[in-house]
Amino acid sequence: MSLAALLKPKSIAIIGASDNKTRIGGVPMDLLLRADFVRVYAVNPKNDTVQGKPAYKDIESVPEVVDLAIVAVSADATLPMLERCHALGIKAAIAYASGYAETNETEGVQRQDDLIAFTRRTGMNVAGPNCMGNANFTDGIFTTFGQSFQPGEPAGNTALLTQSGNMCATVFRMAKRAGVTFSHVINTGNEASVEFSDYLDYLVDDPATHAAVCYIEELRDGRKFLDAATRFRAAGKLLAVYKVGASEKGAEATRSHTAALAGDSAAYDAAFARAGVARASSLAELADLAYLHALSTTSGTCRIGGSNCGVLSISGAAGAILADALALAGGGTPTFPQAVQEGLAAQIPGHSMVSNPVDLTGNIVNSNTFLSECIRLALQPDEIDVLLLYLPGTFLTQALDQVEKAAAETGKTLIVIDTFAMADQDRLAAHGIGYFDDFDRAARAISAYGNWCKAGDAAVTRTTSSVRWPMIEAGREALSETEGKDALARFGVPVVTDKLVHDRAEARRAADAIGYPLVLKLVSPDVAHKTEYGLIRLGLNSADAVAAAFDEVMAKAQSMAGIHIEGVTLEPMLAGGVEILAGVTRDPVFGWMLTVGLGGVWTELMKDVQHRLLPVDSAGAETMLRSLKGFKLLDGYRGAPKADVTAAAKAIAALGEAVLAGGDALREVEINPLLVMPDGRGAVAVDALVLLNASAPETMEKAA
Amino acid sequence: MSLAALLKPKSIAIIGASDNKTRIGGVPMDLLLRADFVRVYAVNPKNDTVQGKPAYKDIESVPEVVDLAIVAVSADATLPMLERCHALGIKAAIAYASGYAETNETEGVQRQDDLIAFTRRTGMNVAGPNCMGNANFTDGIFTTFGQSFQPGEPAGNTALLTQSGNMCATVFRMAKRAGVTFSHVINTGNEASVEFSDYLDYLVDDPATHAAVCYIEELRDGRKFLDAATRFRAAGKLLAVYKVGASEKGAEATRSHTAALAGDSAAYDAAFARAGVARASSLAELADLAYLHALSTTSGTCRIGGSNCGVLSISGAAGAILADALALAGGGTPTFPQAVQEGLAAQIPGHSMVSNPVDLTGNIVNSNTFLSECIRLALQPDEIDVLLLYLPGTFLTQALDQVEKAAAETGKTLIVIDTFAMADQDRLAAHGIGYFDDFDRAARAISAYGNWCKAGDAAVTRTTSSVRWPMIEAGREALSETEGKDALARFGVPVVTDKLVHDRAEARRAADAIGYPLVLKLVSPDVAHKTEYGLIRLGLNSADAVAAAFDEVMAKAQSMAGIHIEGVTLEPMLAGGVEILAGVTRDPVFGWMLTVGLGGVWTELMKDVQHRLLPVDSAGAETMLRSLKGFKLLDGYRGAPKADVTAAAKAIAALGEAVLAGGDALREVEINPLLVMPDGRGAVAVDALVLLNASAPETMEKAA
Repeated sequence: MSLAALLKPKSIAIIGASDNKTRIGGVPMDLLLRADFVRVYAVNPKNDTVQGKPAYKDIESVPEVVDLAIVAVSADATLPMLERCHALGIKAAIAYASGYAETNETEGVQRQDDLIAFTRRTGMNVAGPNCMGNANFTDGIFTTFGQSFQPGEPAGNTALLTQSGNMCATVFRMAKRAGVTFSHVINTGNEASVEFSDYLDYLVDDPATHAAVCYIEELRDGRKFLDAATRFRAAGKLLAVYKVGASEKGAEATRSHTAALAGDSAAYDAAFARAGVARASSLAELADLAYLHALSTTSGTCRIGGSNCGVLSISGAAGAILADALALAGGGTPTFPQAVQEGLAAQIPGHSMVSNPVDLTGNIVNSNTFLSECIRLALQPDEIDVLLLYLPGTFLTQALDQVEKAAAETGKTLIVIDTFAMADQDRLAAHGIGYFDDFDRAARAISAYGNWCKAGDAAVTRTTSSVRWPMIEAGREALSETEGKDALARFGVPVVTDKLVHDRAEARRAADAIGYPLVLKLVSPDVAHKTEYGLIRLGLNSADAVAAAFDEVMAKAQSMAGIHIEGVTLEPMLAGGVEILAGVTRDPVFGWMLTVGLGGVWTELMKDVQHRLLPVDSAGAETMLRSLKGFKLLDGYRGAPKADVTAAAKAIAALGEAVLAGGDALREVEINPLLVMPDGRGAVAVDALVLLNASAPETMEKAA
Repeated sequence: MSLAALLKPKSIAIIGASDNKTRIGGVPMDLLLRADFVRVYAVNPKNDTVQGKPAYKDIESVPEVVDLAIVAVSADATLPMLERCHALGIKAAIAYASGYAETNETEGVQRQDDLIAFTRRTGMNVAGPNCMGNANFTDGIFTTFGQSFQPGEPAGNTALLTQSGNMCATVFRMAKRAGVTFSHVINTGNEASVEFSDYLDYLVDDPATHAAVCYIEELRDGRKFLDAATRFRAAGKLLAVYKVGASEKGAEATRSHTAALAGDSAAYDAAFARAGVARASSLAELADLAYLHALSTTSGTCRIGGSNCGVLSISGAAGAILADALALAGGGTPTFPQAVQEGLAAQIPGHSMVSNPVDLTGNIVNSNTFLSECIRLALQPDEIDVLLLYLPGTFLTQALDQVEKAAAETGKTLIVIDTFAMADQDRLAAHGIGYFDDFDRAARAISAYGNWCKAGDAAVTRTTSSVRWPMIEAGREALSETEGKDALARFGVPVVTDKLVHDRAEARRAADAIGYPLVLKLVSPDVAHKTEYGLIRLGLNSADAVAAAFDEVMAKAQSMAGIHIEGVTLEPMLAGGVEILAGVTRDPVFGWMLTVGLGGVWTELMKDVQHRLLPVDSAGAETMLRSLKGFKLLDGYRGAPKADVTAAAKAIAALGEAVLAGGDALREVEINPLLVMPDGRGAVAVDALVLLNASAPETMEKAA
């Protein structure tokens, strides 16, 4: 899908053009005429002229086949008008009208379905509906009825995309206040035909666009988004997203607001991490990320390599505040090497703080070279990614020449913080020097941006497995635990070997053969939570105990209506390992998501889990394990032997392979527990749950 | 200590007064002359006049005994000058000079010690040194050399106190931008004589001051601060603090910066919670808290009762963003009652969101009463503490009359959010309507302020115990575990009864009497961590096992150099309870702090702990337990019996009583584990560690 006709048209017809420059059909007419970069045709059946230009009574009368039709008519009239545009050979349109799926009403939803059917049939690129159009500042083309965007604004390298029209104007104004200039501003609306990721695909190839900042409520096609995001990353372009719904309440409010389900916040986090997307925690941070990217890429390549900051401050207090705020936001102030500290100590009178942050003291007003020299020293360590200078009010005025000289001489980025908000922003910008007037906002933005910069390419190549799921191919609707474990074992997941038995005598014989202690479990594809139903017995120490347990479990199972009983399994009861959990679920937007955590209460009460989208290789799985707060339990806690983390990571990667191979037939697969034995002794899946899509959720709990 | 002479003098001598209005001795002269509220005398040995006023050659020549001397001379000259002021009968002075303890140099520290000795001897109230003086906007008295504070600014009801001079100007300017006006601005400097809490004590009685916002690096006297803070709370005045050092890095930077140790952040949190102090997470939030307090107390009493917000928004997206940000910041958007939702649905066309947040849609521009009616409905529920209106740009312009009318008719507070930053702030302020231009900042501030408002009086009355610590009174330097448990038992802490034995035969007899399984432990006041040294044996099931364990433990203990062996104890091994930990440590600033958590890994790896300052009664201890993330483990997790939380809370409260009774002789007391048995069966201290101050930390580990 090429969006050039939509975003960079050479000719435009405004259907419903108005003489009133503040009305929905009048604003784009006014903006386009003032910008004067494209051929504009007003279509209005009642007027001879619109805003001083001749008007055409219908689209058919317009003397050329325009690149783009702006359809500023009612919802009812929109689709018939689009049909007429299509009949004339027009390839792109913007539908302003609201009254579609966003209403949550039958009529509106039907209207949107009809529009979707039309665009699928015709291939016409229709933006919206329920959108306010776009502003292309690079080429001076304004197809929006939003009055926040005006010709004559300086064009920049940031594209802004939002799903909400109001947020479009809001983020635009916030970012402008933060010093950001724009290439494109795009309001995607209901995305009936042209989707969010289609715009991203266009922008990644747009030479004028170096960064895209986005307000997202929900994505429909996660895969398309991830592909576009990966291309942004590969091109060195920033893709930053504010996604509403980080809290339950916010997600709920979005669900009511938009026509689709808001994705789960954890899945968005996992997806953004996978594709190298910077997730902003507020709209202000979104603006600041765009500002920092423009600042750090003035010479084409990004000059900020990470979030390790040197801090020079005329106030010890401000230095401490900044160090605090950076640490809390995920950035850092690494201690300077001894030689740098000695150099600084030689410059600064008294026993001041020189380790980073540096307290410059009031000495700055007494010398014309003092600050330059301190900056030079602080920039020396390779690990310093960016230098922050706290110089409020007249301190900055007095030192500005030195700061400018230092900025010209270094390849690193300098950022001034002036909490008095008195700085000459234009002069700083002209010299490529950054500026914030608030400690906290600066620390958050610099940490988030620096961490985005240093995040490596997270792409994982999937090793395509030739192993199959014969039971899925056989059309089975559900798998027993034994079958599930067998299937996973084919992909390399080590599993506890168990023995299926059908009567008491067989159980006795098998138990003696396996050895004690052992575990007895009911096998039934219909019961998911066997512990809760008393269908698992642990620590059986003799054939008599096994026989008794067999009888009890079978009696219990037979009392549960409508479940299929395959028998019971016996397996050795393992001791000495650490229990972890690894599961794969299917996110409706982004697909398979792997969750790893320590077993039981750790996961349930502490939410100490890590998520990643599949594929995940064993190195990735090990990183997930090591990122758990409770990892120390696997790492020789309190004198216990270290657990075999390598084997656990391999088992988890094999689980991921198995799920990808199983594909759409699977609904969810969980190993719980995966028992991680002491180092060198492997890891083994004790229990596994494989849910197929064929088995409806109700089925699993019907015995409850 | 009355600070009236310092903060509200009627006559002032400036020693070192300068003709140059930008110099340290010239600024206050200029400010005071321009404000013209007090009698000012310039002291300058070289000039006949200063800034057009006659100058006196020395302080002795000044024709009256002034209330306050501003001492604007070098550090070396300051103390001699203060001596002369004292000789004249002057009761208060401000010492501007730096070069004292803040330098971390011997000379400066000595200078400060000399100054302290002088003020203790004379009783003179000396502000500073290393401070920039104060600004009293209420009375128009400027004793500062800071140029951020100018006569003619409107006076307000907020006092600003900071320990750092630069932060004084910074917070003042940030707060001014947020719409705050001031009664006093005070820079406390090194606090050699007049301490932070002395100023608070003055301000709580100052009728012009309704709130104090503070920047603190470290407090020396926590008790004095808590007393002042409690008085603020009782007077309905806001005390809000930004305390640097929330991260390790920030604390470290402060340690280098200030002359004293920064207190532990957790202790500050516990202290602020105890005394009802609002802790701001940034300087911007500090400014916003002052703004909200002034806004909500316009009529004398605070109109905001909590952080439950109603949200009306012309954009569904903005409503979701606000709900999200409020939830993450600790505020709320409770769902409206059905009747209110129905009322709103009747007003708003289409199937819009009416449950809270409310999507007003663009309908607002079509009616002169629509918004008033929606506001009236949203304010109806008692649980709604404050109403947020998202009305950006021209939406607010069009609706302002309706908002003003609604504000006049309600006792609740209305706050407008305009992300376009186009609002007429003065007009809104005149109508008592709040204003923010950023979602996130608004949500944080409103949540923090609302939560401060609803926090009840946290005062706990200590029930003075008549129980004693005989072993402390006997002058003992260390207690064995048995002695520690015995001592705690006297205060009502239930402890495991154990039996001390000295030889193998005695151990066999005692074991048979106690019953099995049991636990055997070495008793020695010299070894704190017995498990690590193999001096505890669990699960002994027979007299033979006990005898063997006795021999092994004694052999091990005898091999450890220099420890005193009292014997071993035998105690029943309890099963079926949940292990928790309760300990009391002494914070250098705030004194005894109780820490409660679940046992072992929960506390060590997950940091799932709660802190409170003593005294803590059993209701308070129960709240601490219930606030743990892992509380569910005590509450019948996965079908386990509920634990006896009431008994655990009583035991913890008894521990607190015991520590308060023990007083300064104690260094630290810990019960680990406190075994909480199933409901109705009590809780019991299995192990207890009582460290006395007499026993130096080295002693405890000498066996290591």
